[in-house]
Amino acid sequence: MKVVIVGGVAGGMSAATRLRRLDENAEIVVVEKGEHVSFANCGLPYYIGGVIGARSALLPRSPEGLWERFALDVRVRHEVLAIDRTARTVTVRNHRSGVDYVEHWDHLVLSMGAEAVVPSVPGVERARVLRDVADADTIFRAAEHARTAVVIGAGFIGLEMAENLHTKGLSVALVEQAGQVLPPLDPEMAQPVAAHLRAHGVAVRLGARVDRIGPDTVVLGDGSAVPADLVVMAAGVRPRGDLARAAGLALGPGGGIVVDASLRTSDPRIHAVGDVAEKVDAVSGKPVLIPLAGPANRQGRLAADSIVGSPVRDTDGHGTAVVGVLGLTAAVTGWNEKRLRTAGRAYRVVHIHPPAHASYYPGAAPLSLKLLIDAGTDGILGAQAVGTEGAARRIDVLATAMAGGLRASDLLGLDLAYAPQYGSAKDPVNMLGYVADNLASVTTATVQWHELDAARAAGATLLDVRTPDEFAAGAIPGAINVPLDRLRQSMAGLPPGRLIVYCHAGQRGHTATRVLSAHGRDVANLDGGFLTWQAGVGSASMSPNAPRL
Amino acid sequence: MKVVIVGGVAGGMSAATRLRRLDENAEIVVVEKGEHVSFANCGLPYYIGGVIGARSALLPRSPEGLWERFALDVRVRHEVLAIDRTARTVTVRNHRSGVDYVEHWDHLVLSMGAEAVVPSVPGVERARVLRDVADADTIFRAAEHARTAVVIGAGFIGLEMAENLHTKGLSVALVEQAGQVLPPLDPEMAQPVAAHLRAHGVAVRLGARVDRIGPDTVVLGDGSAVPADLVVMAAGVRPRGDLARAAGLALGPGGGIVVDASLRTSDPRIHAVGDVAEKVDAVSGKPVLIPLAGPANRQGRLAADSIVGSPVRDTDGHGTAVVGVLGLTAAVTGWNEKRLRTAGRAYRVVHIHPPAHASYYPGAAPLSLKLLIDAGTDGILGAQAVGTEGAARRIDVLATAMAGGLRASDLLGLDLAYAPQYGSAKDPVNMLGYVADNLASVTTATVQWHELDAARAAGATLLDVRTPDEFAAGAIPGAINVPLDRLRQSMAGLPPGRLIVYCHAGQRGHTATRVLSAHGRDVANLDGGFLTWQAGVGSASMSPNAPRL
Repeated sequence: MKVVIVGGVAGGMSAATRLRRLDENAEIVVVEKGEHVSFANCGLPYYIGGVIGARSALLPRSPEGLWERFALDVRVRHEVLAIDRTARTVTVRNHRSGVDYVEHWDHLVLSMGAEAVVPSVPGVERARVLRDVADADTIFRAAEHARTAVVIGAGFIGLEMAENLHTKGLSVALVEQAGQVLPPLDPEMAQPVAAHLRAHGVAVRLGARVDRIGPDTVVLGDGSAVPADLVVMAAGVRPRGDLARAAGLALGPGGGIVVDASLRTSDPRIHAVGDVAEKVDAVSGKPVLIPLAGPANRQGRLAADSIVGSPVRDTDGHGTAVVGVLGLTAAVTGWNEKRLRTAGRAYRVVHIHPPAHASYYPGAAPLSLKLLIDAGTDGILGAQAVGTEGAARRIDVLATAMAGGLRASDLLGLDLAYAPQYGSAKDPVNMLGYVADNLASVTTATVQWHELDAARAAGATLLDVRTPDEFAAGAIPGAINVPLDRLRQSMAGLPPGRLIVYCHAGQRGHTATRVLSAHGRDVANLDGGFLTWQAGVGSASMSPNAPRL
Repeated sequence: MKVVIVGGVAGGMSAATRLRRLDENAEIVVVEKGEHVSFANCGLPYYIGGVIGARSALLPRSPEGLWERFALDVRVRHEVLAIDRTARTVTVRNHRSGVDYVEHWDHLVLSMGAEAVVPSVPGVERARVLRDVADADTIFRAAEHARTAVVIGAGFIGLEMAENLHTKGLSVALVEQAGQVLPPLDPEMAQPVAAHLRAHGVAVRLGARVDRIGPDTVVLGDGSAVPADLVVMAAGVRPRGDLARAAGLALGPGGGIVVDASLRTSDPRIHAVGDVAEKVDAVSGKPVLIPLAGPANRQGRLAADSIVGSPVRDTDGHGTAVVGVLGLTAAVTGWNEKRLRTAGRAYRVVHIHPPAHASYYPGAAPLSLKLLIDAGTDGILGAQAVGTEGAARRIDVLATAMAGGLRASDLLGLDLAYAPQYGSAKDPVNMLGYVADNLASVTTATVQWHELDAARAAGATLLDVRTPDEFAAGAIPGAINVPLDRLRQSMAGLPPGRLIVYCHAGQRGHTATRVLSAHGRDVANLDGGFLTWQAGVGSASMSPNAPRL
């Protein structure tokens, strides 16, 4: 059996090495267009920032090493130009010699990955993208002589580039067309990330269209010119599907190769894995693009299993991801609220801001968590976390809970590891479960930060149940202050009509809601309290076209 | 409705505050024998160690504050002496006044917690236990004047006390009757923890019986006298079930109060929660004692729900726990191998030692993980983690996977948060799934560290497939070295018969096993490689009665 794998790195190399472990006698050829068949692509921003000091650390495996260990025939700087599905061949160009040749295959694995999306604005040829080691070398050298940089796009890679160029000492501006950083998050969750970047001196320009790239500036749609000795384009990626399209394989609307659960394309002799292939979204059950390293590695392995005839079934994806931004961590899994709203799904929302570990143990910083819940089934649809500690851990737990089919209320019963330096006896994930259970059982009604204006317009009174000191330090305009601990004796003096209560993070508000409800009042708690409201209105004020939920 | 709650802290206070939120009009009386109704019991060791500076941090809520916020009638230094189930009363002693009185109840919640087990050895009256703030004050003062300390018992609290007394500058010895520290872990997983303690200058005496406690020493069974200005007893806890027993309530064999899934005791008007109540073990489905804060908090809430008539069902427990030991973290969930073996269960074992985050990103230290798998169903039975980073996170994910009923092989498909400073594209939990899948599909056979001697006695040859440099730096005695990358060309020269291969952590061994198997050899991989073997034989040599799996 001869297997040709088009493209190395995560998906391709996982397929190749797994295939060797399953079949010692297969002929396995890996054709890689670039200089390196195996490199740490997720490490590239940190190499540029100097966090990863040695360039060699990015290059774990050479073709020679892969031959010795796995008997793989790795051909770098070779490019597959065409696939002949009838003859079962590929046409390969050796970019070293310039010679083209034909290679037979019994099975073909497509792992071409994704390429950077580069918008067609004047001067864009000066912008650098970051997809491979050569790109990293280019940016690394350019950054040595640059004093200012503009990063276009505030997704994961954009934020990592902004962090690393800032760490390297450049004056950095981050330009994003959307009204928020980190579009996979909702605006009120992304707002603290933008504020954190600004607090560290990174200029964040939201809702900003790039008009043109000049010789030493990036000119935005509003005419402002942002100094830019270096321009990095991080405006997203798209599948490298051209080869597959030309071969007549089925592609989805986003350009990803259509595959079945065993990673077979529309030609059963051809598998596709990683960023070039579609994945199944766990929430919708529909094909999506999830260009992440974890699924690519897994799919490589499963494609190899499939080729040797084992029954495999790729798992549906949640798009779980995490990014570090100058000491802050943001993580996400599943769907966000914007997407649920657009899709017309019925959902419930929970925001909490518990300490990442027991508040009495030094160093406890708040961890902001958002949970999205199916209003019909109490199923978990997605989650977001932002904080200096424990964000990835909680998102991993929530992604696992989704994979296991747990309901949101089930989270209160999870048996999680607790000691005061690591968490709380009621872990933040348990807390999500407690609030979700309160919502599911209608113990407490909540309103969201973006629903507050409408509720007040309809006549509701806003009640701040924090202490007078907290109230004086900053409150929602128009709120009246009745501290929770004086609520029962203040009952008679409260204004009539509907009440919306809030506290710092939502917990005292919940208790106040219960007290007021027991006294016959029509009342709801502001979900996530002052913190979520502040982030929500902050996100709206950050950009001319900020997203409004 | 009048509800009397016996005992405050986690379970009792959760029941009381939840009950108030559910019923504004209930009369809620909390009777607490000690001085404080609400204190951070898990913080006590860190207060002693000076990590938590302010004693007030341990005392979040006073009776006055609880009255203001929750209208709770909290009576500290009051003790329930007897329960009359027919009359629905309790006899209460006010320890301030010395006066006894009778209190009626419609519902009773028992939350007396657990008390320290104190073995009856001569001089034991000099030993201090750590259960409440008064105990912490006593040890805190004693430690001020002490130069040496002996901690008896190397469970979670014993390790925390050893760490904190060491941090405080005392010369500390940790004495444990079992042949290992941290009995909830298996010996080869606990060995690095003991080695870490010793490397930091804590004397660890395993398999050591305390003979007597002298005026300034602890004398062990072997006659050695360990200097001890201060003696802390941390030999475990048992439920405070006397009151329930005297009232005729059903108790289990371990002395815990028998409860149903809604936390009702054998008297449906009486609920029991927290350390005094039995819980249901998730692996066996049978009642067990799990004296941990998380389940206590949850049960308090559920008991309140049950009292107001909501249908509740407590979740089965995995006993998930974590402990920090001088920068090292050890965490566990579910059953360990010792327990599975004793119960005669058929199980599979996986040991891995991946970097806690991408190896090319600075600071990646190995994380040791052990997974126990049901050999019949591929279900997850338990897991253990030891490392400087990410141990609690992975155990939380595995506990959640258990709660969701995922199989061990499903772990390979979990969509987990990855960026190089947080993890790996193949997360350690995914890696467990990869290995588990290899075992389930019989792609690779493994042998465990403790099976190696028997395998070699039966004629197997041990093959070290690491590099010559690694082999020279330390290898398993009697092994021959054939580096993996030269294995194919060395095939003809290998000795006949069964082969057992090993590498550093198991991964190269897996590849070698596949190559040899394809060449017709009878071969197995040493699970967890040299690292697990080293820890295993190290655990055996640490103590005269070390556990042998």
